[in-house]
Amino acid sequence: MNHFMHQLQAREAQVRSVMCIGLDTVPERLPEIVMKEPDPQYSFNKAIIDATHDLVCCYKPNLAFYLSRGEEGMAALRETIEYVHEKEIPVIVDAKFGDIGHTAKYYAKSVFEKLQADAVTLNPYMGEESIEPFRAYKDKTSFILCFTSNASRNDLQTKFLHDTEENGKTVYNLMAKHIVDWNKQGNLGAVVGATAPEEMQIIRGMLGGEIPVLCPGLGAQGGDLEEIFWAGYITPGSLILNVSRSVLFASTGEDFAEAARREAEMLVNQNRVVMEQYEEDKRGA
Amino acid sequence: MNHFMHQLQAREAQVRSVMCIGLDTVPERLPEIVMKEPDPQYSFNKAIIDATHDLVCCYKPNLAFYLSRGEEGMAALRETIEYVHEKEIPVIVDAKFGDIGHTAKYYAKSVFEKLQADAVTLNPYMGEESIEPFRAYKDKTSFILCFTSNASRNDLQTKFLHDTEENGKTVYNLMAKHIVDWNKQGNLGAVVGATAPEEMQIIRGMLGGEIPVLCPGLGAQGGDLEEIFWAGYITPGSLILNVSRSVLFASTGEDFAEAARREAEMLVNQNRVVMEQYEEDKRGA
Repeated sequence: MNHFMHQLQAREAQVRSVMCIGLDTVPERLPEIVMKEPDPQYSFNKAIIDATHDLVCCYKPNLAFYLSRGEEGMAALRETIEYVHEKEIPVIVDAKFGDIGHTAKYYAKSVFEKLQADAVTLNPYMGEESIEPFRAYKDKTSFILCFTSNASRNDLQTKFLHDTEENGKTVYNLMAKHIVDWNKQGNLGAVVGATAPEEMQIIRGMLGGEIPVLCPGLGAQGGDLEEIFWAGYITPGSLILNVSRSVLFASTGEDFAEAARREAEMLVNQNRVVMEQYEEDKRGA
Repeated sequence: MNHFMHQLQAREAQVRSVMCIGLDTVPERLPEIVMKEPDPQYSFNKAIIDATHDLVCCYKPNLAFYLSRGEEGMAALRETIEYVHEKEIPVIVDAKFGDIGHTAKYYAKSVFEKLQADAVTLNPYMGEESIEPFRAYKDKTSFILCFTSNASRNDLQTKFLHDTEENGKTVYNLMAKHIVDWNKQGNLGAVVGATAPEEMQIIRGMLGGEIPVLCPGLGAQGGDLEEIFWAGYITPGSLILNVSRSVLFASTGEDFAEAARREAEMLVNQNRVVMEQYEEDKRGA
């Protein structure tokens, strides 16, 4: 097991929660009170982290919201990751990188060396070559898009394949199979949207128990926590449930951090109940 | 026709070339002579642009090589784009973004507003929602990955589909069809690798004459200029041939810029001969 998975499991045991907060910190949506700070985006993240760090197993900033501010945003992202690390919590950078060879190598450098992230999300359209340079960082985990939570996933991911080997399988089935085959360093994961508990069950069956699943789409996107937990969770570290907007922007007033905590706490409490039921069920079986 | 295509066509007519130089400026591969400059990466790009700007229809920096330097790299990328714009040449940022909704909107902001690029590359794994926020910038063009130049494209792109509508077609066929359907603002393009002249011909047939194709993979990756030109070119602006490493790193000595020009000139001369043959052929037909 690599460093990221060790950390993740330790956190899960400590906080009794598989919740991850997505730091999708939209620069234009920040409360007035942080706007006075030298870097409002970083100050906002810091306040959210302070208010929620005892509830979550990791944080997941999405590159887009930082890149859109250019140099300043990249500094805010770097400092946010440093701050999360001070709390000894791992960070997944959601970047959905999907390039090859030399270029993929430099994306891996960006996220694992420059930003010091512990995990990343990747896009598999260009095949195994786009995974290899990331996989080479043994202690980091790379989550590969498999079945996403958005409507237009059907433009590709649910199409049926006709190849001899893949007969009758969908594109997302093929991806789950690839993730298993490509997992040569034991440090790959899959991204499966929270809005698809049925597909989650199928994909979990294909992945086996060792490959972690990052699951965005709770909250604003409408995924159901209990359903998706039962479909995707097997052992500690096997599932990460991400929530972003509904926590970050629970309030836009001066109480934004407390409101975020309240919202996160509600989800984590729900999570703890389901987790307990699951463990009881397992002991009973 | 949008601003990018107008500019591209004007450049093509002016320089008689569809060549694009990929500014894949690997920070660790720069000649000693630029290492003394305050920002070697930017100085290198500036020298390359000075030496080649009368030969090319556009430049294409790849985000990875700048992102890997963090804030400094993002500054170098922004300044490089500004410098190309001083020469009135359009810039494609090769980023292969592939996210949805809000996040995609912020990637579009990053590349079109913050960086002021004229075009971008996108990854279609998540479907039309990952294209929409970019397409909304009418004067910018978005090139969508269709059939790439690398070996592991076969992990997905050449798989056959079994859907009623898509029967017997490959994933890259489906993508070409999507690009046509999604081209509601008339500002989409396709990425097709230079190593695949046969597939280029099929895809060009599906795209019709209006959709431009960005074609990487010449030079180091082994694509043949003449073959790919005949397969993909129809009218001015319909094809962009990209070359990166073999030009940028033609020499690592003090003569790096002259060596880059010699290499680029060789390709452009080849390009001009094929272009003339094509035009003659067309007049004859």
